[in-house]
Amino acid sequence: MLGKLKIKYIQSLGQKKLRDEEGLFIAEGPKILQELLTSAKKNIVAVYGIEEWIQANEATIGNIETVIVTDDELAKISQLSTPNKALAIIKKFDNSATPDLKGKVSLALDTIQDPGNLGTIIRIADWFGVTNIICSTDCADIYNSKVVQATMGSIARVNVQYVDLAAWLASKKDIRIYATALEGQDVATMKKLEEGIIVFGNESKGISEEVLQLVNVKITIPKKGNAESLNAAVAAGIVLAVLS
Amino acid sequence: MLGKLKIKYIQSLGQKKLRDEEGLFIAEGPKILQELLTSAKKNIVAVYGIEEWIQANEATIGNIETVIVTDDELAKISQLSTPNKALAIIKKFDNSATPDLKGKVSLALDTIQDPGNLGTIIRIADWFGVTNIICSTDCADIYNSKVVQATMGSIARVNVQYVDLAAWLASKKDIRIYATALEGQDVATMKKLEEGIIVFGNESKGISEEVLQLVNVKITIPKKGNAESLNAAVAAGIVLAVLS
Repeated sequence: MLGKLKIKYIQSLGQKKLRDEEGLFIAEGPKILQELLTSAKKNIVAVYGIEEWIQANEATIGNIETVIVTDDELAKISQLSTPNKALAIIKKFDNSATPDLKGKVSLALDTIQDPGNLGTIIRIADWFGVTNIICSTDCADIYNSKVVQATMGSIARVNVQYVDLAAWLASKKDIRIYATALEGQDVATMKKLEEGIIVFGNESKGISEEVLQLVNVKITIPKKGNAESLNAAVAAGIVLAVLS
Repeated sequence: MLGKLKIKYIQSLGQKKLRDEEGLFIAEGPKILQELLTSAKKNIVAVYGIEEWIQANEATIGNIETVIVTDDELAKISQLSTPNKALAIIKKFDNSATPDLKGKVSLALDTIQDPGNLGTIIRIADWFGVTNIICSTDCADIYNSKVVQATMGSIARVNVQYVDLAAWLASKKDIRIYATALEGQDVATMKKLEEGIIVFGNESKGISEEVLQLVNVKITIPKKGNAESLNAAVAAGIVLAVLS
């Protein structure tokens, strides 16, 4: 049974302000919870699930606080349009360490505001072994539930920080900065990078002028057909497949 | 002003059965409508929009049936959670011609059920100049509103057909079939294809055994990090960037 106050509290974590104050966020659905129970168990504060799911996962859940809820209760606390068996309250990850960029490929995101795109980029980064993503402060919040869903659990493994992006890039004088742009080098002709920061820009506006001026190498994914643009996450996948 | 019957009729096009019976579908939002008004004007049956949008686009709309609606009316007929200025009823495209696969790269999709993934793959195909996509009958419907949104207008330029995929591929004896699989050739080491069909499989189950047996060349996108999988659309983008 879930009391009204508890329901309200869990619902409130749908808002960034409350997530920031509490240092908590929500992840939902069997697939992501199983991932996080493996990779980030110590961050999980409580699990709310329907009886069948809780019973099937008892061993993995261990002694984490567990609440069995009805379908109706789950619908109330869920942020999904189709609630999916279980939900967890999780402590935000400690992403405060200065990222070590030496000998690595890292990503910088300029105003990636679509939560699905941000989450998918985090998942792609994790696939290609990229551990640092630096976001401009106006990117979507990584703890937004749609971002969390789209990361498919990779949120626990990639270090994401929010900074004044132009100022931060300007301070990185000893590392090359790459970015996708309309007139650049064909990505297919490029070689794997030993080290570098790759910038991806806003879904419709691209990379801001201020950031673009700091870029050393422009990269293009040549268009052979007629689509107006490529999705930002797909572009990130293509560039990382070649350069990382 | 929109009558109740008209509202019900437009809402009914949210269902595949009704779309099939009427031969119509819905597209929404300024960006896609502007695309379709340019690339597929003759298919547009009627436009419903708020006054401001209709006025700004009068010249492009021309003599297509136009209805000015209030925000409340738009909310009623829209399938989006946030209705976006305008919506059009559109005649389905004629995708009945036998696809010409000679000297081209074409795609085959096995059980791509996520509408966002299907729409994004259509947009990616259009970017890389792929004009034929062959879907297994259990893929999402391309006229589902979420698919239409995700194509960003590319739906008008790519020929999508639904077939019994294993039987169809088995009949293509004179063309090589490629597919992403766990143990295949590293995509980064491959060259552009002159001709071929590339198969992408279901988001979680991959490619069915029956289809896999027909594949001539398996392709792998090597994993360097820890993510459990790559999104199907991202995989399609990476493979097409290298092979198309």
